[in-house]
Amino acid sequence: MPSDIAVYGLGVMGRNIALNLANHGMTVSVYNRTASTTEAFVADLPADSGIMPTYSLGELCDSLARPRVVFLMATAGRVVDLIIESLLPLLDAGDVLIDGGNSYFKDTQRRWQSLADKGIHYLGMGISGGEEGARRGPSIMPGGDAAAWPLVREHFERIAAKADDGQPCCRWIGEGGAGHYVKMIHNGIEYGDMQLIAEAWQLMRDGLGMPATAIADTFAAWNDGVLRSYLIGITADILRVTDADGSLRVDHILDSAGQKGTGRWTAVDALETGVPLTLIAEAVYARMLSSLKEERVALAARLGGRQPVAAADQAAMLQAIHDALYAAKIVSYTQGFLQMRTAAAAYDWQLDYANIALVWRAGCIIRSRFLDDIAQAYERDATLPALPFDDFFADALRGAQAGWREAVAFGIRSGIPTPALSAALSFYDGYRSADLPANLIQAQRDYFGAHTYQRTDRAAQQHWHTRWTDDRQEVAVDD
Amino acid sequence: MPSDIAVYGLGVMGRNIALNLANHGMTVSVYNRTASTTEAFVADLPADSGIMPTYSLGELCDSLARPRVVFLMATAGRVVDLIIESLLPLLDAGDVLIDGGNSYFKDTQRRWQSLADKGIHYLGMGISGGEEGARRGPSIMPGGDAAAWPLVREHFERIAAKADDGQPCCRWIGEGGAGHYVKMIHNGIEYGDMQLIAEAWQLMRDGLGMPATAIADTFAAWNDGVLRSYLIGITADILRVTDADGSLRVDHILDSAGQKGTGRWTAVDALETGVPLTLIAEAVYARMLSSLKEERVALAARLGGRQPVAAADQAAMLQAIHDALYAAKIVSYTQGFLQMRTAAAAYDWQLDYANIALVWRAGCIIRSRFLDDIAQAYERDATLPALPFDDFFADALRGAQAGWREAVAFGIRSGIPTPALSAALSFYDGYRSADLPANLIQAQRDYFGAHTYQRTDRAAQQHWHTRWTDDRQEVAVDD
Repeated sequence: MPSDIAVYGLGVMGRNIALNLANHGMTVSVYNRTASTTEAFVADLPADSGIMPTYSLGELCDSLARPRVVFLMATAGRVVDLIIESLLPLLDAGDVLIDGGNSYFKDTQRRWQSLADKGIHYLGMGISGGEEGARRGPSIMPGGDAAAWPLVREHFERIAAKADDGQPCCRWIGEGGAGHYVKMIHNGIEYGDMQLIAEAWQLMRDGLGMPATAIADTFAAWNDGVLRSYLIGITADILRVTDADGSLRVDHILDSAGQKGTGRWTAVDALETGVPLTLIAEAVYARMLSSLKEERVALAARLGGRQPVAAADQAAMLQAIHDALYAAKIVSYTQGFLQMRTAAAAYDWQLDYANIALVWRAGCIIRSRFLDDIAQAYERDATLPALPFDDFFADALRGAQAGWREAVAFGIRSGIPTPALSAALSFYDGYRSADLPANLIQAQRDYFGAHTYQRTDRAAQQHWHTRWTDDRQEVAVDD
Repeated sequence: MPSDIAVYGLGVMGRNIALNLANHGMTVSVYNRTASTTEAFVADLPADSGIMPTYSLGELCDSLARPRVVFLMATAGRVVDLIIESLLPLLDAGDVLIDGGNSYFKDTQRRWQSLADKGIHYLGMGISGGEEGARRGPSIMPGGDAAAWPLVREHFERIAAKADDGQPCCRWIGEGGAGHYVKMIHNGIEYGDMQLIAEAWQLMRDGLGMPATAIADTFAAWNDGVLRSYLIGITADILRVTDADGSLRVDHILDSAGQKGTGRWTAVDALETGVPLTLIAEAVYARMLSSLKEERVALAARLGGRQPVAAADQAAMLQAIHDALYAAKIVSYTQGFLQMRTAAAAYDWQLDYANIALVWRAGCIIRSRFLDDIAQAYERDATLPALPFDDFFADALRGAQAGWREAVAFGIRSGIPTPALSAALSFYDGYRSADLPANLIQAQRDYFGAHTYQRTDRAAQQHWHTRWTDDRQEVAVDD
């Protein structure tokens, strides 16, 4: 019996995807470059597992039903190109090759174009949820060759996480690198969400002086409201875990945060495409600053540390921190969706933003009830320029902003850093500013570099230059 | 008589560099791919200008004394490679090729390596100061082939800007792409300085409600203190220029700031190398946000605009804004020098940070008396980890921080965006924090991805994992 699908690459993610596929009734051929890895994997499986080991690429490809479906789970980068090269001679036109790894979207875009020329259907599939998600139900963001999606759609809808309404968290994203792009944005948003929670925690701990159990209770309570999400829930869990001596375990963890680089990709892409993705960038930079531990300790001694100021009303400040977290989260998703809008225009993707929010509702790290609200906003208006243009989010921001300002000002007065909460607030105040001081920047650029400027009271296509250091007259400049 | 130097590329920068070289007694052969540009340039020159037109590459190279020195001033990118390819057959080992354009440092690094193999001395030379600087005296940041520098050093020291102490703003930076790298950092810092001034201006105008003349007077007064700098000076100038009807000209300029991309390079490089360069990134993002003018106008109507709150004491708040600008500027340069430190380690450059500050004292956009203070800090200790480790800057930050907090909190309460002033303050509070909440982030990463963590009370090389969703036991993890 030919297999339904091949899984190439049996690291923990590949193994778990294979098990997940088999659990859902598919027959799965598996292959790994190192045969012993394959042997070890299948040795533990029951005879009727539905998983068939293969030990050569020829054996792998011969074992598959036509058109063949080969799912790669390999380390992103050059390795993927090498695997594709090695498979190409064994595949026929019409076969489907899927990259389920964490590839950079521009690589996926390139491979999709190159393989289309050879008649191979290429899918770049973002998969979120880590090892556990891969095994029990991930969030799946497929992109690439739209013609190939109907051939494999059912497989992946079956293994995907299911939202509360039963819908699979697996929806077609768009052509080329769109799936991996949206997965990249997901990861950037994950960085932002985590940083925001960390800042809220520090405001409670160091600003309000709350004990860990009270903070855990607070996060647990917030998890029943608008902030309900996986990350808020695990934060409450984490803040209840103690060492044998009763001390809080997280207090013993080194405050130097690592990263695998996808948050960084998101911020770099924003800079390259011109999107003000300030919150995620601050979250990425905050991890970098955290790694300068020795210098921080030395400077704390030199410059003095935090100087907590008492909050006039503890309960009110706690509500303010809640509102700050909520409003900043709206800003973070606003920025992420702005970036997807920009990418869609640049790469000619027809992104369905409601669908994207729906795909993230389960299986992935940023899953939250908030995503239903985002989906509804884009369902109300698929051409929404950004979340604050939707009434629900405009109301939410208006309602949260007073507390948000109090919480950030409280951090500032107490010497507690709030890079992401502050960046979000500056973005909010900038995005709702009809007038920004960028006119002064344009004047400066014209002063020292004759870069010219436009005037608000004259035709936009006309550029002007002032002879600032001479007679201060303004002259029209032809482009 | 053979010429001392060739200038290839007669755009406004090339023409001005050629005139500057000739003014300082050098004989200069000039060439442009379009002959009419060359003809037009020399047509306006007196007979004894010292500038000799050439109309072929052969003529250009034949006109030069040995070893030949060819100075390129071309648009950065592929064009530079094409010019180098076309010149190579005409050059001999030992000749010196200089790229004086705004090349990306990685391109310079690559060209330097490739040309070294061919025996050509390659210099990548950052030149700052725009058209006026090129003509009257720029700030010059030479890097590349160290052996070539003594051959041309005198030429460029002569045409460079001179600091108040008479020293030329032209000092050897380092091997390979170091000169263009330091120029890139200069440009990023320029973005930050301009954004900070713009924010201070908006706080005065929209927060304190000061009339333009009073703001101009304030900037002029600040230009006599620690903030003394070219950009503060031109800001005071700009704020005195009115239209014929008496209205302030800058008020009519469209508040949508352009960019040529070098600030963006700086922020991208920081993300790629892991340096928390938050202030410059915020400045770059602020220009991007400014360009969303239509959406900003629409959101101002939807969400409501600023809600100025009265400052209790106007004079005190003005001083607070001053202190915020000064402290944030220290942070911006701290971050820029951190980034150079990281690059120096990555590329094995022996950067002399005092020298770099001294090179920026005149001729370039960020020139300021502040740079003398930075130079002195690095002269006191060439291995200074960062500016706040120096007593002068530690004192300055301690003295400014109370006002800084007041000014940022004032902006936050008034709904006036202060992305760069806020980002700087969050960085300051983070950099002087012995403990950051990044331990919670590490716990979250371990919770959902088994990324492991280190403990502050155990050996740093040992990693740990908690079985968070199971028995909450902590286990040692071998890498």
